[in-house]
Amino acid sequence: MSERTVLMTVADIEALFAATFPQTEGQLVIEAVGPMTARCRLPFANEHLRPGGTISGPSMMRLADATIYVAILAQIGPVAMAVTTNFNINFLRRPAPRDVIAECRLLKLGRRLAVGEITLFSDGDPEPVAHATSTFSIPGG
Amino acid sequence: MSERTVLMTVADIEALFAATFPQTEGQLVIEAVGPMTARCRLPFANEHLRPGGTISGPSMMRLADATIYVAILAQIGPVAMAVTTNFNINFLRRPAPRDVIAECRLLKLGRRLAVGEITLFSDGDPEPVAHATSTFSIPGG
Amino acid sequence: MSERTVLMTVADIEALFAATFPQTEGQLVIEAVGPMTARCRLPFANEHLRPGGTISGPSMMRLADATIYVAILAQIGPVAMAVTTNFNINFLRRPAPRDVIAECRLLKLGRRLAVGEITLFSDGDPEPVAHATSTFSIPGG
Amino acid sequence: MSERTVLMTVADIEALFAATFPQTEGQLVIEAVGPMTARCRLPFANEHLRPGGTISGPSMMRLADATIYVAILAQIGPVAMAVTTNFNINFLRRPAPRDVIAECRLLKLGRRLAVGEITLFSDGDPEPVAHATSTFSIPGG
Repeated sequence: MSERTVLMTVADIEALFAATFPQTEGQLVIEAVGPMTARCRLPFANEHLRPGGTISGPSMMRLADATIYVAILAQIGPVAMAVTTNFNINFLRRPAPRDVIAECRLLKLGRRLAVGEITLFSDGDPEPVAHATSTFSIPGG
Repeated sequence: MSERTVLMTVADIEALFAATFPQTEGQLVIEAVGPMTARCRLPFANEHLRPGGTISGPSMMRLADATIYVAILAQIGPVAMAVTTNFNINFLRRPAPRDVIAECRLLKLGRRLAVGEITLFSDGDPEPVAHATSTFSIPGG
Repeated sequence: MSERTVLMTVADIEALFAATFPQTEGQLVIEAVGPMTARCRLPFANEHLRPGGTISGPSMMRLADATIYVAILAQIGPVAMAVTTNFNINFLRRPAPRDVIAECRLLKLGRRLAVGEITLFSDGDPEPVAHATSTFSIPGG
Repeated sequence: MSERTVLMTVADIEALFAATFPQTEGQLVIEAVGPMTARCRLPFANEHLRPGGTISGPSMMRLADATIYVAILAQIGPVAMAVTTNFNINFLRRPAPRDVIAECRLLKLGRRLAVGEITLFSDGDPEPVAHATSTFSIPGG
């Protein structure tokens, strides 16, 4: 993925998150952004486990929500007040106790609403563990 | 709400969570369970804030997911492996920097699937801040 | 439900639909509108059946989508171009071959977005057969 | 897409629908089935229009729901009683008054649950007009 056509690079977004979401430190690695796309990683940690040794649903929801926010920021720049209005997720398979990778593709980037889909994978496994869609409202749009 | 007809009381579920989800300690107060219902509270903490001073979406998603799980456990007993298969949430208003209350009502409690709706409120405000629906798969059902 | 505080009555909305959605004739009975609410009925017809003798999912989706549109029109008046942006439905029980009743409650009526929940019943049965949530975008808002 | 590895071909499913869903005649063209995929077409007709000259939301929901059902039948054979349990759709752009094409990809085909995503296009336009996800329950699974 080229960063040529994005308004914020990975480094730009990392700096914004460090300033505004310090609590996400160590919980989110932004791997790539591109035209209408983003890829993020949730590093494995015991706090994300649930009984049975799989990654918890809320940890995956947090990752998916962050990844679409990264994709939107990359396209439109630092609009801090863009907010999630709808989030839907289907859990498909029990993820292994490993890193989780989220790949987001924006389906629409309108003046007022952005919609994207996010597919989640256990690191190293091609079968998705979860699939989400989400809508963001863009203020002043 | 009477606890007469439930299989697990608030104290039973608190004990189960302390044993199996120690990371939720201090993040979830189970306030009540009843026939097809549960009410939980997310105590306010700075870690739940996002820029703008409102409670973050993922913190509300975690609360909603826990509250329907509590409602299901109260009805069917300690089935640890019940798992979320679908979760959908609409964010309605920016929640104030206060506790968030989640009220769940189960719409269906079948042999294999349970479905419920969860309404989230800022403590003391009657207007909902978010509304979720969720489906759980019940193993061996 | 009082019609006192609504901007369009049942008769107003029936007239609007007859002019703009003639294809819904006979497929939708608007039973009541009130503050933030609406109730509609899908009259039973063989075309709504699916194998097994139950009402088809798409017929229930059409009814739910129409009912929230009725609720919004009642509150804000004839804004013909309000459009659905998100629709989510959980099917709970197989509906009997009878009329289906939809009850909508708006959870939010903002300047740009309206969100509501719709509960569907088989006529005469208190257990819901389906539950939907939906978001509408209001143009020019 | 090869039909080699599917249990029902396009012709098989057309014959099943003609026998069990005669009301869909003329409303659904099954264009292709393949491993974990299906593609269907909604032929344009005035009854699918809504004010503004665009295809109505319920017509697109019906097409999406039928397309994932076709994809499931192709993989598992004529299990007539497979039923939708959850359906979520985001409407992205106003579709032109033309045929609508739906492309389904199954994300999971389990013993009890199947989950898929469906992307809808106006015929001839590469930008999606809507995107849906849906879960089916498979009886006896």
